[in-house]
Amino acid sequence: MNPPNTEAIAELYATLLERKQADPGKSYVASLYAKGADAILKKIGEEAAETIIAAKGSDKTALVHELADLWFHTLVLMAAYDIPLDALTAELARRSGRSGLDEKASRSKD
Amino acid sequence: MNPPNTEAIAELYATLLERKQADPGKSYVASLYAKGADAILKKIGEEAAETIIAAKGSDKTALVHELADLWFHTLVLMAAYDIPLDALTAELARRSGRSGLDEKASRSKD
Amino acid sequence: MNPPNTEAIAELYATLLERKQADPGKSYVASLYAKGADAILKKIGEEAAETIIAAKGSDKTALVHELADLWFHTLVLMAAYDIPLDALTAELARRSGRSGLDEKASRSKD
Amino acid sequence: MNPPNTEAIAELYATLLERKQADPGKSYVASLYAKGADAILKKIGEEAAETIIAAKGSDKTALVHELADLWFHTLVLMAAYDIPLDALTAELARRSGRSGLDEKASRSKD
Repeated sequence: MNPPNTEAIAELYATLLERKQADPGKSYVASLYAKGADAILKKIGEEAAETIIAAKGSDKTALVHELADLWFHTLVLMAAYDIPLDALTAELARRSGRSGLDEKASRSKD
Repeated sequence: MNPPNTEAIAELYATLLERKQADPGKSYVASLYAKGADAILKKIGEEAAETIIAAKGSDKTALVHELADLWFHTLVLMAAYDIPLDALTAELARRSGRSGLDEKASRSKD
Repeated sequence: MNPPNTEAIAELYATLLERKQADPGKSYVASLYAKGADAILKKIGEEAAETIIAAKGSDKTALVHELADLWFHTLVLMAAYDIPLDALTAELARRSGRSGLDEKASRSKD
Repeated sequence: MNPPNTEAIAELYATLLERKQADPGKSYVASLYAKGADAILKKIGEEAAETIIAAKGSDKTALVHELADLWFHTLVLMAAYDIPLDALTAELARRSGRSGLDEKASRSKD
């Protein structure tokens, strides 16, 4: 098992930010930005559904593709809203310790 | 703007893998594993919906929390299915180059 | 196979409208109205995910329950927004003819 | 306010059942049946997300269209799975009385 190259997530996010200046006719991501937030949110809904469907199947490669599509479009949303990736990683770091996970459990109302 | 600490994602994933040995009565994540894949998938559906709802509001901190909840539960799913984080980051890296994004566009049927 | 009692949908909708005057402490639906639209929308997201998950299983009774939960919460949303049920049934009627289904197909961009 | 023509739902469902014999090249619904259950489930996920997004906007006509799309695709799913419409209306009827709504509340674990 290779060490995960989480740096790739920061590189992808940087690329997505650059695409805000790209031609919507030539870049899929620029076309999403041009369509507006609702188009991005629709994709997040779609990819979440496709992740659930793929997870109920037996093809793990297909599941990884759907998970990547889901993360990809959440990063597009963050870029569209100018939310720095650091805000998300800081929030995830907060949940890493045992205490973080237990806190999550205790605040879980549903 | 701080450089994003994407390493935190790998640390969280390692913690989630460890929780597979934890007591479901004491750990939120262990209780999800014990309930099975459908309970995790249900959470992914919920958190995607909450992300969409939060994105339509004006509170960016709330949106970051929902995005973190969504990523968190996709990582729980990956841990439950023994999918290495590297599989996901490799797929995301593939989408980083200009070519990657254009390929994405060209294969996009919907 | 019994003829479907679609009248039951109108009766349920009438009941849901009445619940707008009910005590949120005593009625599940009144508690949803009191929490506001986002709580209802969250339920719609949840029930859609649960419908997908149930459809991937083999228990048709469970699937019918999830479908009923999904329709129920869309009716709660309509009641909360004061959208008459007639608006929805008129739109569905429009889709019943061969032409309606073909039009749907032709306008479907995704 | 016109009385809701819930009969239209039964007529639409009958039409959807007939479409199981239609040419997938000529009918949108027949093409969905031909693609299989996952394609229908994906549409349910999409339309639920679009319902949530439309509900956060101010255009009630657009919301009614999304709700109709969502009901439409749940009816397509039921037709694909040979679930009689009566099974759904019976379940909804069960929830109409005060007792039904309270039972719903009491069994609601989340």
